[in-house]
Amino acid sequence: MLKFDAEKFIDEGKKGYQLREKIEETATKLYDEGVRNIFFTASGGSNAVMQPFNYWMEIKSDIPSYLITAADFLATGSKKLKKDSLVILLSKSGDTKETVAIAKKMEELGVRTVSFVNKEDTPLQEHSTYTIDTFGYHPQEMAFYFLIGKILQKNQEFSDYERFADELKYLPEDMNLVAEEIDEQARNFAEKYQNADYQIWVGSGDLWGTTYCYSMCVLEESQWLRTKSVSSPEFFHGTFELVEKGVPVVLLKSEGPTRAMDDRVAKFASTYTDEFEEFDMSNFSLPHISKEYRAVVEAPVMWAALRRISLHLEDVRNHSLDKRRYYRVVEY
Amino acid sequence: MLKFDAEKFIDEGKKGYQLREKIEETATKLYDEGVRNIFFTASGGSNAVMQPFNYWMEIKSDIPSYLITAADFLATGSKKLKKDSLVILLSKSGDTKETVAIAKKMEELGVRTVSFVNKEDTPLQEHSTYTIDTFGYHPQEMAFYFLIGKILQKNQEFSDYERFADELKYLPEDMNLVAEEIDEQARNFAEKYQNADYQIWVGSGDLWGTTYCYSMCVLEESQWLRTKSVSSPEFFHGTFELVEKGVPVVLLKSEGPTRAMDDRVAKFASTYTDEFEEFDMSNFSLPHISKEYRAVVEAPVMWAALRRISLHLEDVRNHSLDKRRYYRVVEY
Repeated sequence: MLKFDAEKFIDEGKKGYQLREKIEETATKLYDEGVRNIFFTASGGSNAVMQPFNYWMEIKSDIPSYLITAADFLATGSKKLKKDSLVILLSKSGDTKETVAIAKKMEELGVRTVSFVNKEDTPLQEHSTYTIDTFGYHPQEMAFYFLIGKILQKNQEFSDYERFADELKYLPEDMNLVAEEIDEQARNFAEKYQNADYQIWVGSGDLWGTTYCYSMCVLEESQWLRTKSVSSPEFFHGTFELVEKGVPVVLLKSEGPTRAMDDRVAKFASTYTDEFEEFDMSNFSLPHISKEYRAVVEAPVMWAALRRISLHLEDVRNHSLDKRRYYRVVEY
Repeated sequence: MLKFDAEKFIDEGKKGYQLREKIEETATKLYDEGVRNIFFTASGGSNAVMQPFNYWMEIKSDIPSYLITAADFLATGSKKLKKDSLVILLSKSGDTKETVAIAKKMEELGVRTVSFVNKEDTPLQEHSTYTIDTFGYHPQEMAFYFLIGKILQKNQEFSDYERFADELKYLPEDMNLVAEEIDEQARNFAEKYQNADYQIWVGSGDLWGTTYCYSMCVLEESQWLRTKSVSSPEFFHGTFELVEKGVPVVLLKSEGPTRAMDDRVAKFASTYTDEFEEFDMSNFSLPHISKEYRAVVEAPVMWAALRRISLHLEDVRNHSLDKRRYYRVVEY
């Protein structure tokens, strides 16, 4: 399979899983000190990675939580930010300007921060109360499951957290299987849509971050392909009027509570365009994940599937995923 | 000026303003009963109308608030929804399916709802605790300023609310002036971009709802033009890689705390595309609005400007703003 190193992924997953105890200790300490509310804040793709966790908290937890772009949070602040707030930051490089600026500001204000980074000794770590270095191990969501899952458990909102967290041990293995299961569809997709002048991407629930990010951070940023992303319920409040023959509509289908909205999109799009494609969570086998947790892990699982599209697009279009016109190339 | 009835707008504005006392009484009653948190919920354009108010509360208030699509709220619920929550609904027609379903559900749960509608005797009114009928008077945001402004004042977060609300009396007049000030630019815009195959729309802060909605609910829904909308800080995390000569980038420039992000977009876009356009709040005169409130009213003010583009697009493209392929035309 193209650029697929199953063993490396499993090995990284194991290392990522080994962080569990340390992260749970951090979560316990934070919770015991008191958590009035949580701000998830980062930029671009990193913000999108945290969307499912904010979503999870919105639905399941009494603790108020907010997902806010780092630049916005810097510019506006929030009256809800208090001494016993918790600010969760994510920056792979550990040097994203706005994210580091927030860590510094929180340090001054005496507000606790937990920063997720992919390497040691970064400016972000220097200014964070706690740093969780995941060394770039995939899936990066693993560490968030431990942190947020444990907080929910402590708050009496996730009684079977331990069982869920135990199953995560095999998530990388199951993600590899998803990659294999989807690869042929991904190849066909890349070949068919490699020159599409425009694509509508639709998703819902905790796959919204993935939908938003895949279209923006992969198709737009790294392949220079035009997209519109819209959530499944919002699709029917404007964007769907653009659908006609020859307009690609791509749906990421959730197994969570918003699935009926995805079904509605599928029904509409398959009627009005001949270029409707869906990637359906329910088609993935995930042998190690219990039925009740499938919807909880769908963001990283769907990402594993979409990663196959990215690699095939790179290949068939002869356009490196790392090629940029502007990002870290020119000053702006 | 094309399809411009200044007197009718002023007259509607007066009637809308007359609702102030009644709305403030409702706000006071709700506040005195206790408001643990606020859920703003609606669909499509109505959700976008409420975005600035959720944004305002996020920044200025201790009261947690959430903006959530009605269909999502129905599907997932929220653990934060309690007896002393307040659910704010908006449906112009008063019969939007998901919005009515939420009102019914809240009725069963004993949670208070305030519904904004544009006509009497709707299903939404039937199931809402309070209904504010604005009879379609523009700007529809007026009623929200009274409700949310008063709640903020009661919560010691908007001490000069009365002065602000007094100034709103002249907002319709100032909006008319904006329409006149922008009309030539709007006509030129419509002529130049009437056949654009794709446009990137960018905005920030409390103009994000306007940016999102104008591109989706007007350009896409009523003119069948392809758009991508993205917030100013997020623009630099993907979408900007698509910018090159011949790609239209349209910026709605705020006077609020996020203006520096808009400036950054303007600087970038004006360098890399020859089709950069901006609509800048600071160019509007707004003689009756104090400097410190200009940023608070920018959503309806910008809408007054954009409305001119809509009317000119309709005219130059000979494509009615009411023409739909699917919405309320076919079953889906």
